[in-house]
Amino acid sequence: MNVDRILPTDEAHDLLDLATELADRELAPAAAGFEARAEFPREVLRTLGRAGLLGLPYAEEHGGAAQPYEVYLQVLEILASRWLAVAEAVSVHTLSCYPLAQFGTDEQRKLLPDMIGGELLGAYCLSEPQGGSDAAALTTRAVRDGDAYVVTGTKAWITHARVADFYNIFCRTGGPGPKGISCLLADRSTAGIHPQAAERTMGLHASPIAQIAFDDARVPAERLIGGEGAGFTIAMSALDSGRLGIAACAVGLAQGALDYAVGYARERRQFGRAIIDFQGLGFGLADAATQISAARALMLAAARLRDAGRPYSIEAAKAKLFATDVAMRVTTDAVQVLGGAGYVADHPVERYMREAKVLQIVEGTNQIQRLVISRALAKG
Amino acid sequence: MNVDRILPTDEAHDLLDLATELADRELAPAAAGFEARAEFPREVLRTLGRAGLLGLPYAEEHGGAAQPYEVYLQVLEILASRWLAVAEAVSVHTLSCYPLAQFGTDEQRKLLPDMIGGELLGAYCLSEPQGGSDAAALTTRAVRDGDAYVVTGTKAWITHARVADFYNIFCRTGGPGPKGISCLLADRSTAGIHPQAAERTMGLHASPIAQIAFDDARVPAERLIGGEGAGFTIAMSALDSGRLGIAACAVGLAQGALDYAVGYARERRQFGRAIIDFQGLGFGLADAATQISAARALMLAAARLRDAGRPYSIEAAKAKLFATDVAMRVTTDAVQVLGGAGYVADHPVERYMREAKVLQIVEGTNQIQRLVISRALAKG
Amino acid sequence: MNVDRILPTDEAHDLLDLATELADRELAPAAAGFEARAEFPREVLRTLGRAGLLGLPYAEEHGGAAQPYEVYLQVLEILASRWLAVAEAVSVHTLSCYPLAQFGTDEQRKLLPDMIGGELLGAYCLSEPQGGSDAAALTTRAVRDGDAYVVTGTKAWITHARVADFYNIFCRTGGPGPKGISCLLADRSTAGIHPQAAERTMGLHASPIAQIAFDDARVPAERLIGGEGAGFTIAMSALDSGRLGIAACAVGLAQGALDYAVGYARERRQFGRAIIDFQGLGFGLADAATQISAARALMLAAARLRDAGRPYSIEAAKAKLFATDVAMRVTTDAVQVLGGAGYVADHPVERYMREAKVLQIVEGTNQIQRLVISRALAKG
Amino acid sequence: MNVDRILPTDEAHDLLDLATELADRELAPAAAGFEARAEFPREVLRTLGRAGLLGLPYAEEHGGAAQPYEVYLQVLEILASRWLAVAEAVSVHTLSCYPLAQFGTDEQRKLLPDMIGGELLGAYCLSEPQGGSDAAALTTRAVRDGDAYVVTGTKAWITHARVADFYNIFCRTGGPGPKGISCLLADRSTAGIHPQAAERTMGLHASPIAQIAFDDARVPAERLIGGEGAGFTIAMSALDSGRLGIAACAVGLAQGALDYAVGYARERRQFGRAIIDFQGLGFGLADAATQISAARALMLAAARLRDAGRPYSIEAAKAKLFATDVAMRVTTDAVQVLGGAGYVADHPVERYMREAKVLQIVEGTNQIQRLVISRALAKG
Repeated sequence: MNVDRILPTDEAHDLLDLATELADRELAPAAAGFEARAEFPREVLRTLGRAGLLGLPYAEEHGGAAQPYEVYLQVLEILASRWLAVAEAVSVHTLSCYPLAQFGTDEQRKLLPDMIGGELLGAYCLSEPQGGSDAAALTTRAVRDGDAYVVTGTKAWITHARVADFYNIFCRTGGPGPKGISCLLADRSTAGIHPQAAERTMGLHASPIAQIAFDDARVPAERLIGGEGAGFTIAMSALDSGRLGIAACAVGLAQGALDYAVGYARERRQFGRAIIDFQGLGFGLADAATQISAARALMLAAARLRDAGRPYSIEAAKAKLFATDVAMRVTTDAVQVLGGAGYVADHPVERYMREAKVLQIVEGTNQIQRLVISRALAKG
Repeated sequence: MNVDRILPTDEAHDLLDLATELADRELAPAAAGFEARAEFPREVLRTLGRAGLLGLPYAEEHGGAAQPYEVYLQVLEILASRWLAVAEAVSVHTLSCYPLAQFGTDEQRKLLPDMIGGELLGAYCLSEPQGGSDAAALTTRAVRDGDAYVVTGTKAWITHARVADFYNIFCRTGGPGPKGISCLLADRSTAGIHPQAAERTMGLHASPIAQIAFDDARVPAERLIGGEGAGFTIAMSALDSGRLGIAACAVGLAQGALDYAVGYARERRQFGRAIIDFQGLGFGLADAATQISAARALMLAAARLRDAGRPYSIEAAKAKLFATDVAMRVTTDAVQVLGGAGYVADHPVERYMREAKVLQIVEGTNQIQRLVISRALAKG
Repeated sequence: MNVDRILPTDEAHDLLDLATELADRELAPAAAGFEARAEFPREVLRTLGRAGLLGLPYAEEHGGAAQPYEVYLQVLEILASRWLAVAEAVSVHTLSCYPLAQFGTDEQRKLLPDMIGGELLGAYCLSEPQGGSDAAALTTRAVRDGDAYVVTGTKAWITHARVADFYNIFCRTGGPGPKGISCLLADRSTAGIHPQAAERTMGLHASPIAQIAFDDARVPAERLIGGEGAGFTIAMSALDSGRLGIAACAVGLAQGALDYAVGYARERRQFGRAIIDFQGLGFGLADAATQISAARALMLAAARLRDAGRPYSIEAAKAKLFATDVAMRVTTDAVQVLGGAGYVADHPVERYMREAKVLQIVEGTNQIQRLVISRALAKG
Repeated sequence: MNVDRILPTDEAHDLLDLATELADRELAPAAAGFEARAEFPREVLRTLGRAGLLGLPYAEEHGGAAQPYEVYLQVLEILASRWLAVAEAVSVHTLSCYPLAQFGTDEQRKLLPDMIGGELLGAYCLSEPQGGSDAAALTTRAVRDGDAYVVTGTKAWITHARVADFYNIFCRTGGPGPKGISCLLADRSTAGIHPQAAERTMGLHASPIAQIAFDDARVPAERLIGGEGAGFTIAMSALDSGRLGIAACAVGLAQGALDYAVGYARERRQFGRAIIDFQGLGFGLADAATQISAARALMLAAARLRDAGRPYSIEAAKAKLFATDVAMRVTTDAVQVLGGAGYVADHPVERYMREAKVLQIVEGTNQIQRLVISRALAKG
């Protein structure tokens, strides 16, 4: 990746250099092995946490680095260009710290330093097997019983389901609709939290997702974040940030795929020339490079709105939609550049293409993003 | 699949009904298991052979069904809509019978009935590790030694490498360039033919491809097809037919993916309605259905040219290019229709998308197809 | 255009040869002049009529040629490759004969020979200024008064509005909804039929469209086609045929644009080579050629269903959608092949691009086609 | 246009407000009339010049506003959203001032204030009838004769050919290839400069382009910019800036088209609802909005590189390529949103679509941009 970036501070430069160094040293060489073994790289996450890369956007008083989203997202992008599973883990973990950081009481926030430091890894339990895109209809129940909420139900598509140390659980404490939803923060040790077998996903094998069954899991009432009924507001607020995280993952993944394909096409010779010198192939790479630059610029524009305290929800939806569609296209075309070689696991593009697909689905499918954007247009 | 087809004969109707019945009974229920175990369904192929579906385009005197390509391709399409690995096996096997059927002597063709009947499964050894799209530059050598050719070299991306009973080997018996290439037909039992470990492909796990090392493999000289130096002509001639076969596989795969996605979208409800009733999703399915119909019509138009004895090479290239690009797009979008569910192996669309990619690469990458077509335009 | 066509009869070959000859002799040299003057080529239409090309799909007893739609559409395609305005005029005129030919009484059909022979040119008055895609909501009223219907209202987007000799008028004789609609066939001489000024359209200047105001226009009751309330059924039935006609126009227009761009790219040299030899340009032309072949094959597949008496409505919608999207893309890219030269009227591609757009809109916008197709998928 | 922009200074805000006000007051109401009359709006340009909008990126000592390109381009974008011809005129004029501002001597630069102030309008004479994309091969000759250069040859596709007050003439003073090219600055009054009849372009009728014949035109030798042989360097250096200008025009045009289509789709009702509420239409608008945001972000990212003094040539090529492809797509789709109404000049989208095409061609066709980008990838 050879991207000329204009960054807001020297500190940001240092952070990106650090991320690049760790990505090259800790992520790139390890990725293929962990993916083949479907093993979660817990130590890599810890290493990132100790390097200060797990809480970039959070306040320094909570152990964060107080970085603008613009900077955090570029760190994420760099990680994703080497190993999506780790970047996505960072994104999900960062998201998992968000409810507490943004809506927690001072008392509750005492947990934050360990979370942000990466000693405790988080999971974000919003989706349900039947729920799909309709989050307001969730059915996992939490009933107050003394000093605890008793949680019953099933969550689905949960990243870190089997490796997390804490869970944000969005559950129904009241009536139907968005106002009946609350957010609880549960420890892994809570009885009655049962992560299920990992899903047999197309990619991201090193970061398995799974359902979690909540079977009368007692979560202390003091772990209610933001009050009863605040859950949907928290979830929607986190979602915009999460979408930017996915956009950054997509930009990095696409850039990683393009870099690999370009490197290959420079070396590989056919009919007496490096294949990158054939316009039929080179023009396709030029289009890919253009789309990636556009995706990065769009993601950063949205992030700067967020950093400036302006509304950024629609621009985040655009960035998520555009960047993930680009990632799907670019990774598919990167396989094509390698021909038969691209279709086998000897080259990482085979993996990149399988990974790209999930990004079009998570944090709101791309259909949902289009819905969000078109409704904004309709309202004017 | 609910396609209204205009077929040339009642016999063709019967053949398609038979193919549909076998596809439903033998292929559909078995696919997931064999794919998960990466096990080649040898018995399924035998069943198809006994039902007469392995030699459809060949003469009855050789055990074939003397069917027009138009009919053969629709059988292939139906098989591919249930299980690509089997359809591709049929296509490759049919291609493997082509050199003998088209260019063999009467004496040599005595082998055909067993091949066409499916007792003997074929492999087609043209590609090489370094060769890529430049077939005329192949380097596998065959040196005449008494009553045999001694073959040395390595072939790559060979379907059926490890399960075939006979191999078409394209090798260099003369000087550089296309005129130095010959075609040998070798038995599996030949000493010195060493299939390598299966490639770790993205899909088609039930029909593994592998390299084959030829280490002083002695092939009887009487197994030379079409004379010394005829190999490139044979390969190019077979290629056009092979491209139609891949086009048919692509149409079937895309149709299978669409059918599954439509079925899901009719059942799945969100926000109180079947999701197929949302235009945002329904219009995408309409585009997919339209492209599949166009791909099928284009493939059949090319096949009818072949059946009429007219030049069809360019139209076959168009059909291969168009149908496989459609298959890639439609299968990727079919996963999207299912959302998270589409990303896991519980639904076949996860597999379809991984399989589609290979079709853009084999029998000439789609870049090669564009080259073939654009050169024809340039010549006028 | 160098298309290898498999045709059903020798007569069909002769008809296509005749169409090609007339297109080359009468259409191609005249197009630019008539378009620049925005003059309708009435005589050209008469010439086509006398050559028997205006009533190809109709019965011989009514002066038609009893040709299958498959043949008629290819004639239309050939005309459109030289001059869209004339092909579209033929398509609209053929459509205007349809209600009478299909639903008229024997007595009424006595008018057909003059219509089909091209002495009388037809217009098809369905759309209304506010109606858009919702034909069932039309508001033009016809009130029975003695032996006539008195028609009041305004029709919009009417091809031949100012040059037609007869008008099919779809109007409301009953209550709201589709069942209140009837179809009248009015002579041009009818008092109270007032074609308005031509619309300032982007293209098709030689075949202007206009609104028609009906101001107490008395149409004899004997000119009611198919009975009161039959209008919507007639319109919908005609629509499927009309869509195939537009698809054929689109294929021809795209082919004409590609042929011109290819011819230019063979001659034009840059950096020392014919520009068609640069893959960056040649691959784009290959894609265009492929899409045109697919569009033609799809259109003919739908036509053959119609000719075989099978349901073809959905396939006609697919053909219209696909072919017109291809025409828009190919004509836009053809301009690009010529660079600056393509943007000026010295070359016909400038006109082709402006013309292509209308095809995505007429006979049901392409959104409506997607709606038709997606509803069929939803029903299964 | 309702775009939330993060601008570097309050002054930039004021400039954009001023541009918006002038665009609304002077451009929007006048556009249709001037375009219909094919009349160049010389007074509008003068008004912009007096308001300080014609020399935004140039030094204050030369009468400019010393604005970063980031700001200048957004002014251009706003103008283009109302009337492309004027925005393009500003872009070309700004480009015409560039050789003098960047490479002129102090003495020569005394002309700048009148140019930048808009009293003198500039033309940029680089392209030739046969030259196309191969600028280094230009053939217009300038021969030194005493205190003047005598210029002979023909320039093509010249914006302002017939209305400019001064001309940058790129001509050959030396041998073949880029090193033989020089740049002269000629007054309109020079004998032997003959603008030809306006080209019959698809759009931009209010800003006609034309060939200019140079027939022994004597240009004072003191008007040589940057020394003999410096011409190609000047042209290439200007080109990068010019590409950003076209990108800004494209973003503005696309935004103008989207805004109009959205406004229409909010008002227009079909089947009982505003058509924007149909996902089939709304999702398309969402994609358009997303692509426009991406194009804008990409253009601004390239501009910020330029403003920071970093290499930006490749990013400018990406921005030009991406933004103009978006403009072509969005304007074509905007016509579709209006259906038949979009195809007539009663609504400006008919014009936007015709205008968009030229942007894919000028300042290096989009094929040339792909070539520039792919070569950079090949070099690494």
